[in-house]
Amino acid sequence: MKLNILGCYSATPRTFTNPTSQVLEIKNHLFLIDCGEGTQVQLRKHKIKFNRIKHIFISHLHGDHFFGLVGLISTFRLLGREADLHIHAPKGLKEVIVLQMKLAQSWTNYNLYFHELTSTSSELIFEDEKVEVHTIPLDHRIYTNGFLFKEKIGERKLDMNAVLNEDIDVAYYRKLKQGADVPNKKGEIVKNQTVTLPAPQPKSYAFCSDTAYNEALVPIIKNATALYHESTFLEKHAKLAAPTKHSTAVQAATIAKLANVEQLILGHYSTRYDNLQDFKTEAQTIFNNVELAEDGKVFEF
Amino acid sequence: MKLNILGCYSATPRTFTNPTSQVLEIKNHLFLIDCGEGTQVQLRKHKIKFNRIKHIFISHLHGDHFFGLVGLISTFRLLGREADLHIHAPKGLKEVIVLQMKLAQSWTNYNLYFHELTSTSSELIFEDEKVEVHTIPLDHRIYTNGFLFKEKIGERKLDMNAVLNEDIDVAYYRKLKQGADVPNKKGEIVKNQTVTLPAPQPKSYAFCSDTAYNEALVPIIKNATALYHESTFLEKHAKLAAPTKHSTAVQAATIAKLANVEQLILGHYSTRYDNLQDFKTEAQTIFNNVELAEDGKVFEF
Repeated sequence: MKLNILGCYSATPRTFTNPTSQVLEIKNHLFLIDCGEGTQVQLRKHKIKFNRIKHIFISHLHGDHFFGLVGLISTFRLLGREADLHIHAPKGLKEVIVLQMKLAQSWTNYNLYFHELTSTSSELIFEDEKVEVHTIPLDHRIYTNGFLFKEKIGERKLDMNAVLNEDIDVAYYRKLKQGADVPNKKGEIVKNQTVTLPAPQPKSYAFCSDTAYNEALVPIIKNATALYHESTFLEKHAKLAAPTKHSTAVQAATIAKLANVEQLILGHYSTRYDNLQDFKTEAQTIFNNVELAEDGKVFEF
Repeated sequence: MKLNILGCYSATPRTFTNPTSQVLEIKNHLFLIDCGEGTQVQLRKHKIKFNRIKHIFISHLHGDHFFGLVGLISTFRLLGREADLHIHAPKGLKEVIVLQMKLAQSWTNYNLYFHELTSTSSELIFEDEKVEVHTIPLDHRIYTNGFLFKEKIGERKLDMNAVLNEDIDVAYYRKLKQGADVPNKKGEIVKNQTVTLPAPQPKSYAFCSDTAYNEALVPIIKNATALYHESTFLEKHAKLAAPTKHSTAVQAATIAKLANVEQLILGHYSTRYDNLQDFKTEAQTIFNNVELAEDGKVFEF
């Protein structure tokens, strides 16, 4: 899994910082998560083959999370895109996009599907053989979801010494990987667990922006490989967090600890701060494995 | 008059080029003309005091001319703007902006006025003591206006030698500048033209993007000090101009010549071209005083 941070600052764009957008590479998918103004330029700057994006996930309809979407949709048209594009977003976004297309008399020459989100419970919104995506209901000023991207459990690994020892025909290897008991060449049934090893632990990535401190998301993101959690404020502005429905670095770290994630990535910094290091320092008073998102940074897990 | 080019390329944003946006400084106004995606970042990069913008003029509702507007409106709110903001734009834009505000539950804390344009004839859309703004109906795929920014004719200048010679009381100087005949100290009426000089020729700037070759705009922009005219294509792609309702550099120069403008500024280049110099070379076969717009360039006239 590879996470490309295109933008990780809160609302006000500045000269050198970008509003929220990320690309997650997982099992041959390129998932775009949020799409603030200027995202298409960030995609180009970071040389992401953005025509490969087939699914876009929008957390909520504050401008710093979606104002770049209509431009990206238009650019796909200008570049002659033919592949379907799926947009998973709160109800209302379709109306915004369609109205602008109508006024410009510019319809896409590819299929554009809107999957409008309205549920306030976590739901499965995308699934294929290798990946699942679930919503993570967040607590913000308007209807907002985070997203949990999960690899599905893979195939068991063959313990080749044991397999050869048992003298199992190669034709059964596929079934062994799928967990079945199979016969050996003598016709005796071999218990699967005696000749295979468990599948590698599937990885998962949880994106949680924007949200107030909210322990309700802990069970949904439990044991995630990586958690991106917003940390708009430092402790000295902690009083602003509750009324604006944002979090502090310490609150993000508390969620990370309660959910027992492996790694916490902080982002969505208020543009009032110049020194990001303080976010890490404050979070590490609660949870050790903290990284700072920065525009252009890439995480692999 | 000072013209700041923020972006001057056609539709597809690339890493280092920006879609259409300009700021015209005229008689203490900062007028924003078109507002493609990323305009607010360009305003910051070029250190334009964008809180001073009170009037925004949008030519048409293709995304490369207005996708940056909703973000700018939001940023004004975040920065605590209090001054009124007037948006002069084709009918439909108000609906787009209001819908997005409604979804975000984010209303401006300043007055936002939409002046919706629907006329296909040139009309006066803004006027104060020193400036007029008129629409320039253009011929594009959707309803489109250029804009003519005109200084009003100023006051006559006193010919101080003649004024002192005629022994006119200082109390009458203001009337003289306004063109009136006034008495001298002996009570004799002095003809205005014998003691004043004509006001300086008022300057004007015509913005014409996007449009097919269209001689109907010649009388509207006649004798303009500067004309920005789109030149999407070079001669080798001249066949694309008519169906897409754009112009070539040669067509832009022909309009400049017919309208007898002082200076032609080319822009709205298709992003297929790397060498802008060819636009100038081709235009200069028709009209001599040609300049190339470039992102970040400033023109003074």
